[in-house]
Amino acid sequence: MVVLNQDDIKNVFSMEDAIQADKDALKLYSLGKSAVPLRVNLDVPEHEGHSLYMPGYSADANALGVKIVSVYPKNIEKGLNSVPATMVLLNSETGEVCSLMDGTYLTRVRTGAVSGAAADVLARKDSKVFAMFGTGGQAETQLEAILTVRPIKIVKVFGISIERAERFAERMTAKFGEKFGVEIFAAKSSDEAIADADIITSVTTSKKPVFDGRLVKKGCHINGVGSYTPEMHEIDEYTITHADKVYVDTRNGVLNESGDLIIPIKNGTFSADRITGELGEVIAGKAPARISDDEITVFKTTGSAVLDIVNAQRIYENALKKGMGSIIEF
Amino acid sequence: MVVLNQDDIKNVFSMEDAIQADKDALKLYSLGKSAVPLRVNLDVPEHEGHSLYMPGYSADANALGVKIVSVYPKNIEKGLNSVPATMVLLNSETGEVCSLMDGTYLTRVRTGAVSGAAADVLARKDSKVFAMFGTGGQAETQLEAILTVRPIKIVKVFGISIERAERFAERMTAKFGEKFGVEIFAAKSSDEAIADADIITSVTTSKKPVFDGRLVKKGCHINGVGSYTPEMHEIDEYTITHADKVYVDTRNGVLNESGDLIIPIKNGTFSADRITGELGEVIAGKAPARISDDEITVFKTTGSAVLDIVNAQRIYENALKKGMGSIIEF
Repeated sequence: MVVLNQDDIKNVFSMEDAIQADKDALKLYSLGKSAVPLRVNLDVPEHEGHSLYMPGYSADANALGVKIVSVYPKNIEKGLNSVPATMVLLNSETGEVCSLMDGTYLTRVRTGAVSGAAADVLARKDSKVFAMFGTGGQAETQLEAILTVRPIKIVKVFGISIERAERFAERMTAKFGEKFGVEIFAAKSSDEAIADADIITSVTTSKKPVFDGRLVKKGCHINGVGSYTPEMHEIDEYTITHADKVYVDTRNGVLNESGDLIIPIKNGTFSADRITGELGEVIAGKAPARISDDEITVFKTTGSAVLDIVNAQRIYENALKKGMGSIIEF
Repeated sequence: MVVLNQDDIKNVFSMEDAIQADKDALKLYSLGKSAVPLRVNLDVPEHEGHSLYMPGYSADANALGVKIVSVYPKNIEKGLNSVPATMVLLNSETGEVCSLMDGTYLTRVRTGAVSGAAADVLARKDSKVFAMFGTGGQAETQLEAILTVRPIKIVKVFGISIERAERFAERMTAKFGEKFGVEIFAAKSSDEAIADADIITSVTTSKKPVFDGRLVKKGCHINGVGSYTPEMHEIDEYTITHADKVYVDTRNGVLNESGDLIIPIKNGTFSADRITGELGEVIAGKAPARISDDEITVFKTTGSAVLDIVNAQRIYENALKKGMGSIIEF
């Protein structure tokens, strides 16, 4: 069995690898070539925690396993990760556990990559200005993914704390400024952030929309990443109802979990049949993509175990090739 | 994180420990003090396999985790375990994975121990003769458990292959003969095996009953372990319908999964309300136990994740105390 920590994963698996894995995973999902049962949720009220089990299988990706994610807000007081996660990968030919890997970094990279995949498929090729909402644990890979797929020159970061947004912008400048030839700075307002933005990504847990959809410029592509409960609502109703095309990663996930779509549907201003398609359907040629540089496109993701298993399998294969990770006899 | 292989577990966890853990686990289960969601089953038809995920939580036992069991009959051709299993234990206070352990041995010891617990609670104190049906992977711990709780002097083993039963009896004699002061030999027929038996355990996957219930002597206690699908039927209808008391580990599991009870219920010769109680109810003093040395008692088990998590947590605690296992930084 191969144990892979965060550094091992970074060493063998690039953002490009993750974007390709996500595209392949969502295509398999939309073609019905994966099995993703409902996740199992165990409440741990004694410690104000939840423990989630997300198994999945895809024969075509040779990928089988389960991601275990715990949500323990009080871990922060203990100086621990509040969302510890572990991926358990199985060999689909023998059913044996073949790898254990850091699920926190796996989640970050595959979630960033899903926005990268969507932008690669849906955003204007010449996108230069990127607006980012949210500066939390998922923000870095979200930024890296967009920089990877489009020739972004300016990134404007907005968050509820301008100081945190400034610190994030500084860190990201040190990391990506030179590599991607990009200027990254904190915006003073939401309006300033989205002015001229070709791509917007929101990765917050906000219950109130974080930008004004009426100010979004024509041709913009928007990724909604943060809202994963019916109460969370970061993309405003105007954006959803006035976008030319609205895409999702999985209809099942988004329509059951995300306030970004559930709230407009409940208000009667949007309906599920107005979803243009799943991203995997676009990739498979079964749903239309953007057809002009004027269209506003929205992509809403809530994630899926199929992303975890396909990324994990490729990370494992790369680690074997490069001899990375710790082997334990078991 | 602590990794525990089969030898590590054996070194820190005795059959007595497992029997106590099972009693505590089933009591918590029957008192509604555990959360055991439906197991998730992923079919892997490409490799004629199934991959099962069994999560569970019990606050009172401080136990949280998931057992992953794969059923891959074709593994035998490859010289591999056909039912590889891995237990992933979480720290219920932080939600972090704290231990990974051999799930195959965990299953064997907790499944043997559940019969031991039942015999300890239900069998006559002076039980001397033990009949065992089945010589497969689960047989050794089934035998050890009964030897642990009752002063058995004679063990008669029966299986479809007399040669295999003889080899099993020889191996078990070497292992347990002196330790428990017991004579272990293969019976030539099913009737010979159960003649005079004070305790009978059946651990086969037979679809036809393995002994004749009319020949069971008064006062006998019977453990049905093998039948875990509606088609498997090792304990005959006469035994179920004529026993003085019939117990189960979990009503939910047995009534949905085991042919031993499903078939008589379907035939109209037995009904669920004739179950005397769950073993945990007896242990908690909420259901009656045996009241005379003449009663025939039956215990049917199909297992439960609550057994896995409680045993795994105790194994982990013992391993920490004794400094056993391999630590991996993660």
